[in-house]
Amino acid sequence: MMRIVLAQLNPIVGDLAGNTQKILDAIAHAKKNKVDLVVFPELSLLGYPPEDLLLLPHLVNAYIGQLPKIISETQGIAVVIGTIRHNLDQSEKPIYNTAAVISDGKLLGYQDKSLLPTYDVFDERRYFEPGLGFTLFEVCGKKVAVTICEDIWRHGDLLKETHYHRDPVKELAALEPDLVVNLSASPYSVPKLAKRFSVCSKAAKTLGCSLLLCNQVGGNDSLIFDGHSLGVDEKGELIACGKGFQEDFVLIDLAAKKTEKLPSDTLKDLHDALVLGIRDYFYKSGFKKACLGLSGGIDSAVVACLAVDALGKDNVIAAAMPSRYSSEGSVEDAKKLAEHLGIELLQIPIEGPFDAYLQLLNPVFKGKAQDVTEENMQARIRGMLLMSLSNKFGYIVLSTGNKSELALGYSTLYGDMCGGLAVISDLTKRQVYALAHWYNREGEVVPKSTIEKAPSAELRPNQKDSDTLPDYEIVDNVVQGYIEECMSPEDICKKWGYPKDIVDGLIVRIHANEYKRRQSPPGLRVTEKSFSTGRRFPIVQRWS
Amino acid sequence: MMRIVLAQLNPIVGDLAGNTQKILDAIAHAKKNKVDLVVFPELSLLGYPPEDLLLLPHLVNAYIGQLPKIISETQGIAVVIGTIRHNLDQSEKPIYNTAAVISDGKLLGYQDKSLLPTYDVFDERRYFEPGLGFTLFEVCGKKVAVTICEDIWRHGDLLKETHYHRDPVKELAALEPDLVVNLSASPYSVPKLAKRFSVCSKAAKTLGCSLLLCNQVGGNDSLIFDGHSLGVDEKGELIACGKGFQEDFVLIDLAAKKTEKLPSDTLKDLHDALVLGIRDYFYKSGFKKACLGLSGGIDSAVVACLAVDALGKDNVIAAAMPSRYSSEGSVEDAKKLAEHLGIELLQIPIEGPFDAYLQLLNPVFKGKAQDVTEENMQARIRGMLLMSLSNKFGYIVLSTGNKSELALGYSTLYGDMCGGLAVISDLTKRQVYALAHWYNREGEVVPKSTIEKAPSAELRPNQKDSDTLPDYEIVDNVVQGYIEECMSPEDICKKWGYPKDIVDGLIVRIHANEYKRRQSPPGLRVTEKSFSTGRRFPIVQRWS
Repeated sequence: MMRIVLAQLNPIVGDLAGNTQKILDAIAHAKKNKVDLVVFPELSLLGYPPEDLLLLPHLVNAYIGQLPKIISETQGIAVVIGTIRHNLDQSEKPIYNTAAVISDGKLLGYQDKSLLPTYDVFDERRYFEPGLGFTLFEVCGKKVAVTICEDIWRHGDLLKETHYHRDPVKELAALEPDLVVNLSASPYSVPKLAKRFSVCSKAAKTLGCSLLLCNQVGGNDSLIFDGHSLGVDEKGELIACGKGFQEDFVLIDLAAKKTEKLPSDTLKDLHDALVLGIRDYFYKSGFKKACLGLSGGIDSAVVACLAVDALGKDNVIAAAMPSRYSSEGSVEDAKKLAEHLGIELLQIPIEGPFDAYLQLLNPVFKGKAQDVTEENMQARIRGMLLMSLSNKFGYIVLSTGNKSELALGYSTLYGDMCGGLAVISDLTKRQVYALAHWYNREGEVVPKSTIEKAPSAELRPNQKDSDTLPDYEIVDNVVQGYIEECMSPEDICKKWGYPKDIVDGLIVRIHANEYKRRQSPPGLRVTEKSFSTGRRFPIVQRWS
Repeated sequence: MMRIVLAQLNPIVGDLAGNTQKILDAIAHAKKNKVDLVVFPELSLLGYPPEDLLLLPHLVNAYIGQLPKIISETQGIAVVIGTIRHNLDQSEKPIYNTAAVISDGKLLGYQDKSLLPTYDVFDERRYFEPGLGFTLFEVCGKKVAVTICEDIWRHGDLLKETHYHRDPVKELAALEPDLVVNLSASPYSVPKLAKRFSVCSKAAKTLGCSLLLCNQVGGNDSLIFDGHSLGVDEKGELIACGKGFQEDFVLIDLAAKKTEKLPSDTLKDLHDALVLGIRDYFYKSGFKKACLGLSGGIDSAVVACLAVDALGKDNVIAAAMPSRYSSEGSVEDAKKLAEHLGIELLQIPIEGPFDAYLQLLNPVFKGKAQDVTEENMQARIRGMLLMSLSNKFGYIVLSTGNKSELALGYSTLYGDMCGGLAVISDLTKRQVYALAHWYNREGEVVPKSTIEKAPSAELRPNQKDSDTLPDYEIVDNVVQGYIEECMSPEDICKKWGYPKDIVDGLIVRIHANEYKRRQSPPGLRVTEKSFSTGRRFPIVQRWS
């Protein structure tokens, strides 16, 4: 019987030499462990998503030229590896998203991906020609079928935006395979693991054989891949689950299956995802240290906690940058948090430059009243100071806005939106509070007063967020309904009982602030619809 | 015989009521002029590109519900209008990009778009199901075929990124139509009009009948549609050409055809495109006034000229913001330009805030030498000042970086990259000079000294761009070769005879500065590959 390893790797996009080495190391490790078959994730040679790197013909040739080096290291073992190959027909797109099936030093053949997701963050029809059908490969005396990620999702009936003509699971069932493997690069989002298991389970039952899914792990720009590779038997029961948010070699002995339980800890997973997203963004781009502003508020507090978990406390530098409108409590809260986390806290009051700008612009503004201009000025001075630290010491600035603020443009472009990575830009305000409570589960990390006080930007005397925003509960629900579920204003009003004018007003604000979001740093995606590459709305439009 | 009007309209994306009214006005106008058939551009009811607005089911229903209002106004006339319709099969994507063919108050049927561009700025497979075939419609006693934009491009053999399986022109030729119309939303780029004519000409010859293409006009975010609707007879000769860069009703009497000449003035077209792009970005979002910094350099000078042509001199406010490193000549050049253009020039020297920052950060920087930090600071102070003018007076800031700078990251994030619109971000340095010379064709507009002096950011004493960049000729060629044509470094070296290390160094810089470009304002697209939505590279990667 077969011993199989799901090599749940964390590739770096475009790292030809590094990813190859990772794959060769995994094969060597598997050989040592007397494994019959190693399965790698989708496009594991390139790292997912390679995006427009795939449009460089010299890159495509280099990756295709790399495969023989891997094949030559497969004596005595079978390997299924995600890569690309030329479409020699030249019909529509020039390459396939494919799996190379290799055994004992020989290439048995390719299995191309049939269903190419082209929605949300996925642009596969931009690059790939779809595969036209499936064949079985004889591996270790078994008939093995290979699928790639989306190929098994049509059957699960959980896709919202696309109803594919073809159902590869049904096509494969007719071929009666002994085993089906799936190479995935399936990104994390809050309810994703349960969905992924349900898809695998349903497919395995229809196929009447075991289904083993090897998922990529790691953060690549906005996308966080959670790993959690899965093994499911022909009854749809879970027989293996890889670790979440780290590399893993998931060994499955088909002769000695045992039932496993799906892990489930939503907040811990959310935490682990964000930590991985930060860590890989830094590590993969060669940076070590982050800096951020601590306002004393909940958002920057949670980002600081996450950054410490991702990079270590010595690699996180915080700055308190109080203005004439900052409360004493805020500065105290920032200090307390920095103490709890053991991070350095710089004190850089912004009155000097603020006053210099006010004086300089006084003749230009000709006695006009103070307004949002001067509020933005304070945020932008803080942005400038953080970017100056970044430039001088080589830090990456973390921006701290949440999804609810970003949706409504309750943030200053070139001010608090400055940064290399927007850590919690896909978390509603309520999710930020939930994470703060999670951090405090065994004692105070985020100061109690930070959690309990009313949110405020402190950019004018006694300002509160509630002066210009409805309750965050309303904002969060509208953001989730309108942005994540594309609900109509009418349906949102009906579902939550909100007045139409409030909902309409929020939706107008969402669209009107597209121009700000277009210039925001990349944000870590943790829902099925985040701002950034998966959401593409016009800036100038008159729909709403 | 048939009198046909190509109604070359400028819709606003998502403006249901406004676009409908434009269409109804055009139909009424055509009736008055005894026209038999009016052809509108692709998706003219929605405005192209609607992007993810198409994912809102309530929007889709509203647009589909609008068509009967138009149909009821078509007594005595035929109309072909670009819109959307449901895909009732629910196969893959839920809607078609379609043309409604209407005659004398009745809907004759729909013709769906078959070839869906999914490359560069186009994402049509994200939204639309492809049409499966073509039928002829009987209009005014003639057999009329309808195609939508890309449908006729496969036959022209000029598409680089996609080789479609199907060739709708050949499919249609077999049906022997009397007339083929094409509804387009074909954006401008420098060599586009000649290409578009070549495509139409080739198609018409194969079809053996006249081909009439109605193109959208207007700026929508980054994309500029040039109009230039075309009529071509069965011999492939031009029989009509609509105006460039403005709305037009192109009347074609098929009984009295006469040969026309294709207009060709590359620099004037480039100018007109940019002016339209600016004007529509402002007009369609309800803004009137622009502000920008004038450094005395060539880039800001050309942007100021374009802004004046787009918005009028009273709507352009310039600011000279000299620092301790600015030369006197630069300030003089800025003044001279402002005088030539008749625009207001604010004088806001930045020494005050610059000094305030230096003092504030002195203890934090602990005696470290001045470096790029202090250079960026100056650029960011200027960004802050322009954004403060924007906030206080309701201006949109125009950023002035060119494509060569943006490629290499020779610009300051949150500094000179601040703005609502990046006007010349798709022009290489050499194109910027060409436009400056074009402006001076009948006398000095851009000061001679601005054109003749060596480019400098003036952020440290005696700085010149050439201190840290190779000659702009090299930069421009590498940008065009690598970004616009996806050439390999080897091919670039071979074509221009450049040393490998210089080319490799520039390519590394191009990829390393993806993070800056991701946060740049939307830029006006005038080439076939601009930064912004049509170019999607990972920020974190190790290919180059």
